Amino acid sequence: MPVNPNASIEITAFRWVPEFAQGLVRDLRARWALEEAGLDYRVRLLDQQRPPEYLLEQPFDQVPCFSDGQVKIFETGAIVQYIGEKCAALLPRDPQGRYRAIQWTYAALNSVEPAILNLLLIDVFFTDQEWAKLRRPGAADFAKLKLGRLSEWLDDKTWLEGDRFTIGDLVMTTTLRFLRHTNLVDEFPNLAGFLKRAEARPAFQRALSDQLAVFAANQPQPEGAAA
Amino acid sequence: MPVNPNASIEITAFRWVPEFAQGLVRDLRARWALEEAGLDYRVRLLDQQRPPEYLLEQPFDQVPCFSDGQVKIFETGAIVQYIGEKCAALLPRDPQGRYRAIQWTYAALNSVEPAILNLLLIDVFFTDQEWAKLRRPGAADFAKLKLGRLSEWLDDKTWLEGDRFTIGDLVMTTTLRFLRHTNLVDEFPNLAGFLKRAEARPAFQRALSDQLAVFAANQPQPEGAAA
Repeated sequence: MPVNPNASIEITAFRWVPEFAQGLVRDLRARWALEEAGLDYRVRLLDQQRPPEYLLEQPFDQVPCFSDGQVKIFETGAIVQYIGEKCAALLPRDPQGRYRAIQWTYAALNSVEPAILNLLLIDVFFTDQEWAKLRRPGAADFAKLKLGRLSEWLDDKTWLEGDRFTIGDLVMTTTLRFLRHTNLVDEFPNLAGFLKRAEARPAFQRALSDQLAVFAANQPQPEGAAA
Repeated sequence: MPVNPNASIEITAFRWVPEFAQGLVRDLRARWALEEAGLDYRVRLLDQQRPPEYLLEQPFDQVPCFSDGQVKIFETGAIVQYIGEKCAALLPRDPQGRYRAIQWTYAALNSVEPAILNLLLIDVFFTDQEWAKLRRPGAADFAKLKLGRLSEWLDDKTWLEGDRFTIGDLVMTTTLRFLRHTNLVDEFPNLAGFLKRAEARPAFQRALSDQLAVFAANQPQPEGAAA
């Protein structure tokens, strides 16, 4: 069981987040990669209101941070890649296989995620704002354009580069999950299949379940419940 | 002179782009990294209207693609990191230094660029749209929040991790340049200094000049000029 209070690898995660974010918070990427690699890790929990000194670890005030002895890093792309270095199954060793996997990690985070996250933010945070109502159709079209390109590339392959699941597939999956409140991914059956295959992996299921268990254990009491 | 038609490394770039994009197109990142590393490269020029088969090389229809023998990749983050593997000055060899540099490459592309690029798109592509007028102040605030975090982290350091210029600084610089049509970076004097130091590097100057020279040589003729 990779979650182990005595592990040398540590990640940060939130003690609790609102329901729309449960199962999406980015420590899921690190947990999943660690599960795939079979590496134990411990979790340092943070309140939503982080202490100011957390910025010295994570300048953008996000989770997760990652430490493994002397190596202390943030940004899930870098964390997942670091974990991949310890697991040839996640990050192939031949130069082309290696850099195709790394390329898809960057592609998920830079060529796909901004369009997808923009739609999530419009639907969750800005839903009542006039600009968001006006922009939503265009933002959805832009997300669909990205999904369409990805779907064309994926074609009938199992994973983005063929038969091997890599860190690129892992990060792309967690990126596509930001659209779970819509049916956009289902408009592309091969992408929907990709997502389903990835989420069915036992390592993903353990990672998701461990993230959700923390939130369940720290669910805020309804006001007055303490009285 | 790294641009060399007989080089084994090849990148793709546009033959010409409108003025607002000149000096921003992402092959600049690859050119700059190759200049820093002292590696020769050749350039395959594409028209703005790419042939449909280009999607087999670059599923998101962008530039640059990169090839070095058997290694064929896209996404500037991955390309710059690949070049860094060949140049210890750009990508340190010790695990912490190495992953701090990689982490900043991802941070530039995922934690900073989306906010900045959103503002550029509002100002360049959507400027007449009602949603863009309503959203601009909030989008500018969000970009400033990111710049503020970055400025706090940078503090009085020369580069993001201290004295050594790495691929993380290179990609962050090219990301900050997407705000050149505004004075937002100047609101953070240490970031403005960082940008100025990075742009003053001879390798950057050569890369920029080589990108701009292609556009100058392929400037479309005004209509009727051929008559």
